[in-house]
Amino acid sequence: MADHTHPVMQDIAIGLGDGGGSRREFDSMGDVEVPADRYWGAQTQRSLQHFSIGHDRMPKEVYHAYGIVKKAAAMVNAEEGRLPQWKADAIIRAADEAIAGKLDAEFPLYVWQTGSGTQSNMNVNEVLSNRAIQLLGGTLGSQQPIGPNDDVNMGQSSNDSFPTAMHIATLTLIDDRLLPELGRLAGVIETKAAAWMEVVKVGRTHLEDATPLSVGQEWSGWAAQLRDCIREIEHSRSGLFELALGGTAVGTGLNAPRGFSTKVAAQIADLTNKPFVTAPNKFAAQGSLDAMVRASAALRGAAVALMKIANDMRWLASGPRCGFGELKLPANEPGSSIMPGKVNPTQCEAMVMIAIQVIGDDTAVAFAGSQGNFELNAMRPIIINNVLHSATILADGCEKFRTYSVEGTELNEKRIGELLENTLMLVTALSPVIGYQNAAHIAEDAEANGTTLREAALKSGKVTEAEFDRIIVPKEMIGDGVAGA
Amino acid sequence: MADHTHPVMQDIAIGLGDGGGSRREFDSMGDVEVPADRYWGAQTQRSLQHFSIGHDRMPKEVYHAYGIVKKAAAMVNAEEGRLPQWKADAIIRAADEAIAGKLDAEFPLYVWQTGSGTQSNMNVNEVLSNRAIQLLGGTLGSQQPIGPNDDVNMGQSSNDSFPTAMHIATLTLIDDRLLPELGRLAGVIETKAAAWMEVVKVGRTHLEDATPLSVGQEWSGWAAQLRDCIREIEHSRSGLFELALGGTAVGTGLNAPRGFSTKVAAQIADLTNKPFVTAPNKFAAQGSLDAMVRASAALRGAAVALMKIANDMRWLASGPRCGFGELKLPANEPGSSIMPGKVNPTQCEAMVMIAIQVIGDDTAVAFAGSQGNFELNAMRPIIINNVLHSATILADGCEKFRTYSVEGTELNEKRIGELLENTLMLVTALSPVIGYQNAAHIAEDAEANGTTLREAALKSGKVTEAEFDRIIVPKEMIGDGVAGA
Amino acid sequence: MADHTHPVMQDIAIGLGDGGGSRREFDSMGDVEVPADRYWGAQTQRSLQHFSIGHDRMPKEVYHAYGIVKKAAAMVNAEEGRLPQWKADAIIRAADEAIAGKLDAEFPLYVWQTGSGTQSNMNVNEVLSNRAIQLLGGTLGSQQPIGPNDDVNMGQSSNDSFPTAMHIATLTLIDDRLLPELGRLAGVIETKAAAWMEVVKVGRTHLEDATPLSVGQEWSGWAAQLRDCIREIEHSRSGLFELALGGTAVGTGLNAPRGFSTKVAAQIADLTNKPFVTAPNKFAAQGSLDAMVRASAALRGAAVALMKIANDMRWLASGPRCGFGELKLPANEPGSSIMPGKVNPTQCEAMVMIAIQVIGDDTAVAFAGSQGNFELNAMRPIIINNVLHSATILADGCEKFRTYSVEGTELNEKRIGELLENTLMLVTALSPVIGYQNAAHIAEDAEANGTTLREAALKSGKVTEAEFDRIIVPKEMIGDGVAGA
Amino acid sequence: MADHTHPVMQDIAIGLGDGGGSRREFDSMGDVEVPADRYWGAQTQRSLQHFSIGHDRMPKEVYHAYGIVKKAAAMVNAEEGRLPQWKADAIIRAADEAIAGKLDAEFPLYVWQTGSGTQSNMNVNEVLSNRAIQLLGGTLGSQQPIGPNDDVNMGQSSNDSFPTAMHIATLTLIDDRLLPELGRLAGVIETKAAAWMEVVKVGRTHLEDATPLSVGQEWSGWAAQLRDCIREIEHSRSGLFELALGGTAVGTGLNAPRGFSTKVAAQIADLTNKPFVTAPNKFAAQGSLDAMVRASAALRGAAVALMKIANDMRWLASGPRCGFGELKLPANEPGSSIMPGKVNPTQCEAMVMIAIQVIGDDTAVAFAGSQGNFELNAMRPIIINNVLHSATILADGCEKFRTYSVEGTELNEKRIGELLENTLMLVTALSPVIGYQNAAHIAEDAEANGTTLREAALKSGKVTEAEFDRIIVPKEMIGDGVAGA
Repeated sequence: MADHTHPVMQDIAIGLGDGGGSRREFDSMGDVEVPADRYWGAQTQRSLQHFSIGHDRMPKEVYHAYGIVKKAAAMVNAEEGRLPQWKADAIIRAADEAIAGKLDAEFPLYVWQTGSGTQSNMNVNEVLSNRAIQLLGGTLGSQQPIGPNDDVNMGQSSNDSFPTAMHIATLTLIDDRLLPELGRLAGVIETKAAAWMEVVKVGRTHLEDATPLSVGQEWSGWAAQLRDCIREIEHSRSGLFELALGGTAVGTGLNAPRGFSTKVAAQIADLTNKPFVTAPNKFAAQGSLDAMVRASAALRGAAVALMKIANDMRWLASGPRCGFGELKLPANEPGSSIMPGKVNPTQCEAMVMIAIQVIGDDTAVAFAGSQGNFELNAMRPIIINNVLHSATILADGCEKFRTYSVEGTELNEKRIGELLENTLMLVTALSPVIGYQNAAHIAEDAEANGTTLREAALKSGKVTEAEFDRIIVPKEMIGDGVAGA
Repeated sequence: MADHTHPVMQDIAIGLGDGGGSRREFDSMGDVEVPADRYWGAQTQRSLQHFSIGHDRMPKEVYHAYGIVKKAAAMVNAEEGRLPQWKADAIIRAADEAIAGKLDAEFPLYVWQTGSGTQSNMNVNEVLSNRAIQLLGGTLGSQQPIGPNDDVNMGQSSNDSFPTAMHIATLTLIDDRLLPELGRLAGVIETKAAAWMEVVKVGRTHLEDATPLSVGQEWSGWAAQLRDCIREIEHSRSGLFELALGGTAVGTGLNAPRGFSTKVAAQIADLTNKPFVTAPNKFAAQGSLDAMVRASAALRGAAVALMKIANDMRWLASGPRCGFGELKLPANEPGSSIMPGKVNPTQCEAMVMIAIQVIGDDTAVAFAGSQGNFELNAMRPIIINNVLHSATILADGCEKFRTYSVEGTELNEKRIGELLENTLMLVTALSPVIGYQNAAHIAEDAEANGTTLREAALKSGKVTEAEFDRIIVPKEMIGDGVAGA
Repeated sequence: MADHTHPVMQDIAIGLGDGGGSRREFDSMGDVEVPADRYWGAQTQRSLQHFSIGHDRMPKEVYHAYGIVKKAAAMVNAEEGRLPQWKADAIIRAADEAIAGKLDAEFPLYVWQTGSGTQSNMNVNEVLSNRAIQLLGGTLGSQQPIGPNDDVNMGQSSNDSFPTAMHIATLTLIDDRLLPELGRLAGVIETKAAAWMEVVKVGRTHLEDATPLSVGQEWSGWAAQLRDCIREIEHSRSGLFELALGGTAVGTGLNAPRGFSTKVAAQIADLTNKPFVTAPNKFAAQGSLDAMVRASAALRGAAVALMKIANDMRWLASGPRCGFGELKLPANEPGSSIMPGKVNPTQCEAMVMIAIQVIGDDTAVAFAGSQGNFELNAMRPIIINNVLHSATILADGCEKFRTYSVEGTELNEKRIGELLENTLMLVTALSPVIGYQNAAHIAEDAEANGTTLREAALKSGKVTEAEFDRIIVPKEMIGDGVAGA
Repeated sequence: MADHTHPVMQDIAIGLGDGGGSRREFDSMGDVEVPADRYWGAQTQRSLQHFSIGHDRMPKEVYHAYGIVKKAAAMVNAEEGRLPQWKADAIIRAADEAIAGKLDAEFPLYVWQTGSGTQSNMNVNEVLSNRAIQLLGGTLGSQQPIGPNDDVNMGQSSNDSFPTAMHIATLTLIDDRLLPELGRLAGVIETKAAAWMEVVKVGRTHLEDATPLSVGQEWSGWAAQLRDCIREIEHSRSGLFELALGGTAVGTGLNAPRGFSTKVAAQIADLTNKPFVTAPNKFAAQGSLDAMVRASAALRGAAVALMKIANDMRWLASGPRCGFGELKLPANEPGSSIMPGKVNPTQCEAMVMIAIQVIGDDTAVAFAGSQGNFELNAMRPIIINNVLHSATILADGCEKFRTYSVEGTELNEKRIGELLENTLMLVTALSPVIGYQNAAHIAEDAEANGTTLREAALKSGKVTEAEFDRIIVPKEMIGDGVAGA
């Protein structure tokens, strides 16, 4: 078909009516009836029939990313002269709609499907094909003039395009949602740490009273943990920037022209404004999902830190009268259906559960990551679903935790002061002066007799009143800053 | 209010119009605007605001089960004379609607909420309260004449009612979906095993050629694994039959009348036709979720077995020309977007991914199960969500796997015969006659020289032609039945 | 060789001198030099060379169990007339020495070896062969008159004998060590629960003050958890009683006589005094390790409960002055190298770590359990090593935890009383009288103004002094016993 | 004590005789009898009594690293004038002996002990104290002139020194063993990949025949996976270079002089020739073990890749006659105790089990990493034990796998050629010419009728003989290099 005779793209709104009924679509296995108001084709319909398992649908982020893949491929194919520009234009228009989320309802497939993600790739191919056909005035289901395999999938395989979409989707979610939310949470904690840097409190190791530190120092530790997690997630992005596209079926690039992988990666980089490059070894890129496993590990690292932070906060807020009681968390809702006036650390609990879920998701990811065979790791849907799930609940969880708990947390300075006054572990400061064993006996005596440390120290005869009062000054026992001695 | 003056329940259809706008609801913390077309109240609305995290909603099965809890409690409370019968009737009517799924849209809360499930309990209390108020001609949001806490939640706490609903929901899903589907799958495998009990094939250990067995014996092993899994899941039900209800806030039963726990468990048993009893120790029942952890372990057991079965099937079907090629799986869809005519073991892959997910879910469950403190394990939402998720995808996965793969699986008997003829491991039968070492040398010689076992055996001089032909008869090497020698 | 000419067994002590040097041994692949002072043969030596990986050796319990397998097989083989009695007698004598642990030093192989455990089976075969040869006056390494394959391994394969030894070893450890220790720990907790059944304390849910319960009720919950764990471990024994022996290479029983599996299981039952039976399906018994996965899950269940218990104990003991401080744990050692007089809940920490390790071990077991292929699950060494490891550290951990922490735990009744007096959650008892919302406002008012509950209640005007004093009686708020209302 | 009167260090060999009996040692809790032939003191002995749990001992690598910590601290303390030089010299001499492994037998403690590692720190303090006392002619157990707390532990706490030793031990093992072995394995695979870059074979996706690639390309993918794993492990070292030392009890550095943390880190860097620095936030460094969790994740990444590689190798070697049969692995030992002549992929199996164990170990590490509270993560022993275990079995496993399997692996080129000739997936190359659907019908026709692809293609009429022979040339279908199209 010469270009001057090609159909002209019309500006037709998305939609196929809602008149009910069905349309005939076909693939290499034959004809299939699909709902007339849907863009998808035969293979999507087959998958819906064979894989309606549970409620887990392939995340929409995968399809938005796939839109970028199809758009970039069409652009390169057109540039190379393999795909007529008018065909490319129609595919690109449809792909842009997918990228923008306008075709979300056309991507209904389940997570539990073929391990390569082929069915989701074909779902995209079919929807973009039919949408392009519509735009070009053709007949839906005819695969003319835009075929799902020959045109939309040109130069691609599910085997290289699906992991490419996985990487794009994961990076997008990390960049747009997770890193900003982790950063905001760290920022709020840092602000509080700075504000409370001089409020001295009892430290606790093994849950037991220990030497003092400041509230700000304690909070600074949480912030430092989060900053390290952020750095690690940023690091994990490096593996995700390497794209499989151009490897086609088994990594050799069969049916894609020389140079395709490099050009299409550059095109994706251009479209996303991220430094994507082509993976240096396509057999590793398609036979494994190691970069995804590593990204999942980085998310897990954040979960591990967040669990510690949320646990610390809820324990420090325990009470109000029979617990540690140092922190006052915001009361967002009645805590109990039976105990009136009860307030619970619900945001902390949600965060702890999110952390455990991310660790569980990551277990599935690592297991699945180990189960590749030969030229394909056919565990892609489970991996992308778990990684996007983890990133989503971490990001949303951080936002809620910050907004509804951390930002509004206040100190119970009265309680903090009372506890500090009581602790026997201030004795540690005597140790360099009178020796560890003598200091130990003073603390043991105070505890056994229920006296104050001062009383026991003076009684011991190992230290004078003046010495005690010079040495045992909590606010001078917290050092300077956050880096220790 | 005297009973003879109480409002009369009308038969009003579910629904609050869709006129938009909002309604004022209140709880102990004050007033909250909720959408006018929703039954829920203040605490549900607060939770929606504070916990919109990800896409995970508390599973509907929990609310259906909660309907049973509320109905049973109202019945017992009325019997005991604590709750007027007309109030109980209205609550029961609303609860029946919840049980039937007619109020599903009124239960929008997220999984990531308070760890006790209080918000979901209050969601139920509020919806049933307002629905009962509607039925009784009252004013929505007035909490009169049916209060969410004082009436619907009478004698209960989230702390005892939520784990009760968890047990009911889990058992219902196991009984209604999972066990039947596992049984059907085992049944189909048993049928095939029986049909192919005489088809002799090469065995494989360490992936390497081994002594022969029959196809039916191989399949019988898979079925036996599944039957054991079914028994284990059935066993795990025993812990789930023990209900926490009646422990109220911390397990002591405060604010519930003596005998409440026994009566309400009996009522739930009656409503569900399952042998529920009251948990003998409420402190264990509310402070731990051990019975759920054990149920999850039983689901994991099925995942472990299903993974082996699905893997065996896809490896035995590998090829068609360059793999094992013993089985022919049904071709349900084109396998590749780039390789024409390719057919893949997609149902097996989905099952393998489901198995891995169940193992990952179970990791989260066990972790969360260990994180209880004092009188409450506040990890309930994550546990119920993962257990129901696992049970659902296992059940649906078994159904699809059976329907679209196992039932249609056929043998490639030609290939099976060729492989059997080739294997050197038939030499094992010579071992008792000529000794292990001599037999080993024959097999090694055949492999080194690319000859048949017969040629190498005769060449060795350790066995005569007649002996060889008498001893090396594959179909006589598979023993008798499935229980070994 | 006729029986009347057979060699006569001498009563020769175990030992091959320590003169150094080596001895030639052979297998089907040829000759191998082994240390002259060792009983093992060629295949053991090969394995030592090829698999010296890390420090993990196959647990001795496996070899003790293997002694029982070899003894039982020899007895049945002799009864059947396949093995001359004098040969059987020598093998049995050597096997008895293995069972008694006298040959432990002869079993040096690593865990990371062939997945079937063949190398450990051959290690046993070789050692018993050479020891029997020694007893019969033969030449070590000659495999005459007792061959490792033809005589000691008669009627067996690693594929059926190794999982048989796994089951025997696991059951022995569970019965001899784990169940008694779990029972003793539960018993001590029950004794304490009974002693403290009337000591009323503040309850805690979500870590926050809740309605009261007694110390004994709290401890009864821990005991109930442990009793359930014990029952579950007992249940998991049922799968372990089914033995693979008699399936030989692939489950068909090739080279074992009809009836061998039943007889040898009965013999093992007789030798061990445990109800072993032959597995009804040998293809499942050899192709999977599902019974081991289930046993591991039962161990994990105990870990989950123990983690909760140990955590509760250390939190309740936190302080001594700045924590909950309700319990006083025994001080077994100085707690800190720098903080004099510090005492830490070290037994609790050890138990928490043990629990986490058991959960980690179980993850490996479940993963490995899913990785069987065809007629063999070749992940046996990792599974038996992890299961025995978990059972051992659980048993030892329970013993130490009980002896050095739980038994010596005391109450700080003064502290318990003070906390109880303070808690606002006693307000819950007012709820049925004045309604949930009114009660909530009283508690909130008390917390906001730092007053007592009594003060706030009276100030509210919702309750009279007399009513308050009648209703708010902590010791009447803990119900009756442990089963709730 | 003035320096000119101090005791003079003698050159006394390690050893306290073996005369039996005991010696009295003391700590702040009182006296303890210890074996007279051991250097350790009271707290080590207490720990041995209270924590003899299982067979897991704290790894020796921890003590070697602790030697470096104690040496560096003594050097800095002496420089600062806090510790007399003659005391420092004796401590340094003893520490050097610990570093060299000469005191290994003096460090008997179990993994399951206090969660801070205090008992192992005190074990080191006591041993170095007594050894220094011996060198200085003092009385063992007198703590004079070198005290375990006041001198050896000067300026330190277990809370900062134990994680410092963890980091040093982990880095040493990674650098000395793991990275070299991973590199050697990758190198051997790269060499084979280069040698076999032109040997064309059938590709496989979903276990099913796919388009061709070369053996070298396939192997290059494995090598690329390993190279990425190496890079990730190298990256994970960065967090380990940050040392907690100088934070003392709770991170504030109490009892250590200003500047101590920086100086001692520099000293450790000097002693180890590694770029250690002081951790910028000591509250994070002591309250979490996040850097260890991340290091564990990097090890897990290697496990995930190695599992895929070992699995591919054993499947490709399956047979010899009834499997894929493309690879011939070295036969290191007889494979079966019952099947003569059987050879199994035992090194691959060991590697798969190692990979699973590392994943299980990592689960324990991540869980434990999340369980910190306040100023201490008291899960250190379990974490260091699992991380060192994983690194050790990975390193040793790689060495054995390389030496005894990968290096000796050969191709079965005849088999590879036969399979390639048979595969129908060469049809993919026709797709760009005749369209996907036509190509699919050709492949399906060939499979259905058991004909060759060529026959089916010509029969279809869609392609001429000349076209077919020009297009279907496997060696021209594998692209160029490893980066795809």
